[in-house]
Amino acid sequence: MNAQKNLNTSRPLDVLGKSLNSQVLIKLKGGREFRGVLNSFDMHMNLVLNDAEELESGESSRRLGVVLIRGDNIVYISPE
Amino acid sequence: MNAQKNLNTSRPLDVLGKSLNSQVLIKLKGGREFRGVLNSFDMHMNLVLNDAEELESGESSRRLGVVLIRGDNIVYISPE
Amino acid sequence: MNAQKNLNTSRPLDVLGKSLNSQVLIKLKGGREFRGVLNSFDMHMNLVLNDAEELESGESSRRLGVVLIRGDNIVYISPE
Amino acid sequence: MNAQKNLNTSRPLDVLGKSLNSQVLIKLKGGREFRGVLNSFDMHMNLVLNDAEELESGESSRRLGVVLIRGDNIVYISPE
Amino acid sequence: MNAQKNLNTSRPLDVLGKSLNSQVLIKLKGGREFRGVLNSFDMHMNLVLNDAEELESGESSRRLGVVLIRGDNIVYISPE
Amino acid sequence: MNAQKNLNTSRPLDVLGKSLNSQVLIKLKGGREFRGVLNSFDMHMNLVLNDAEELESGESSRRLGVVLIRGDNIVYISPE
Amino acid sequence: MNAQKNLNTSRPLDVLGKSLNSQVLIKLKGGREFRGVLNSFDMHMNLVLNDAEELESGESSRRLGVVLIRGDNIVYISPE
Repeated sequence: MNAQKNLNTSRPLDVLGKSLNSQVLIKLKGGREFRGVLNSFDMHMNLVLNDAEELESGESSRRLGVVLIRGDNIVYISPE
Repeated sequence: MNAQKNLNTSRPLDVLGKSLNSQVLIKLKGGREFRGVLNSFDMHMNLVLNDAEELESGESSRRLGVVLIRGDNIVYISPE
Repeated sequence: MNAQKNLNTSRPLDVLGKSLNSQVLIKLKGGREFRGVLNSFDMHMNLVLNDAEELESGESSRRLGVVLIRGDNIVYISPE
Repeated sequence: MNAQKNLNTSRPLDVLGKSLNSQVLIKLKGGREFRGVLNSFDMHMNLVLNDAEELESGESSRRLGVVLIRGDNIVYISPE
Repeated sequence: MNAQKNLNTSRPLDVLGKSLNSQVLIKLKGGREFRGVLNSFDMHMNLVLNDAEELESGESSRRLGVVLIRGDNIVYISPE
Repeated sequence: MNAQKNLNTSRPLDVLGKSLNSQVLIKLKGGREFRGVLNSFDMHMNLVLNDAEELESGESSRRLGVVLIRGDNIVYISPE
Repeated sequence: MNAQKNLNTSRPLDVLGKSLNSQVLIKLKGGREFRGVLNSFDMHMNLVLNDAEELESGESSRRLGVVLIRGDNIVYISPE
């Protein structure tokens, strides 16, 4: 299966590589949401957003500018 | 037992390999559910869904398109 | 003690090896229960059930067919 | 201290080795309790009980027979 | 700093080595308390108490005799 | 992707290196917030703030001076 | 960045080395607070306090004398 997998599929974090300098939506454990431009990430899913804002009910509730989010808080990341 | 196991049984993550490009249902800790087409996964169960939607009471509540879900949130994955 | 242990006792996961292709009851953290036929498992207790159903108060509440359960959610596994 | 410790004291899991084939009481995180005959254990405190029952307020609430308990759920184990 | 530390200070678990065969108070996550005679411990803070009792509001609520407590539940240990 | 990543992007913790001796806002799991001057950090995101204060509703509720925050509590860090 | 970091900044746990034999305030997950004289620590932030007391609303609620606190419970440590 591994050989087949390597040929036919990408790795999950490749989605982050493709999203650099683009806007992403981040959902954290507990429900917090952030939107911002992905600046960097590592294999723990630690990531830095630029022009970041925290959202409540989809509306901006706090402008953070640059923010480093610790990866273990993340539920999902979705490119927008 | 190991020899017997290797002969007679598959490994749990083989189910993900067989589900690539097919629709899966994902249940997360806390109860969140997602449905989408499995695009990639790794050994931590980090995975990417395409055409993903978040579900509430089995109905689509949010269309996410592409979403990277962090594996440590996952309770179960079921091919549909 | 180790020598004595190796001679006289089995390892806990041997119970899973003996339960392959048999029905098991799975209890998860938070109280969720599943019943199904054990198809595969690994050392993290990730496991795949066939003919799986989720239970509420001992009754089937949802038929899942094939399901991969992430091992870190598991409280106990009992062969039936 | 290490030398002194090795001479004068045993290791905590030795209590499990001495309890094989004897009845033990298991308390889990969240308050669940089990009583059964210890059949096997490993260094993660994964363990198998035979003739196991789940307890509520000290009374048997569910007979499980053989049960594999995942070690990370355990608060304490007490030989009876 | 390391050299200075090794000369001037002890290591935290040395307190457990000095408490062997003496009474200790154990506080667990969630608030549970135990008192007993420390019989053994390891580097994960797994430990065995003899003559152990569970406490409620400082009073004995359950006599456990010998008990193996899994280290990851522990908040603090205090020699008495 | 790795080569491209190394050329074009920085690593998330570089944001902390650039924030040394500057004021940062720290959000912890559970909602606690701190503001202070970043004095040091390590790869676990353990960090030391000088002139630190704990915030409630954005207002200073407790002056701590020097504080070492354990990295596993951190949700995000934002330079101000 | 690493070279610059090693030259210009200290490591977070250095704050603990400098606080040996001095009074510190400890905040735990869940809100518990302790005050005492730091006797020892290790890289997991396991630490021993002498003359320790547990605090409620900043007042002493329980005198513990010597206490070993397991590092994974700690939110922050502040020298006083």
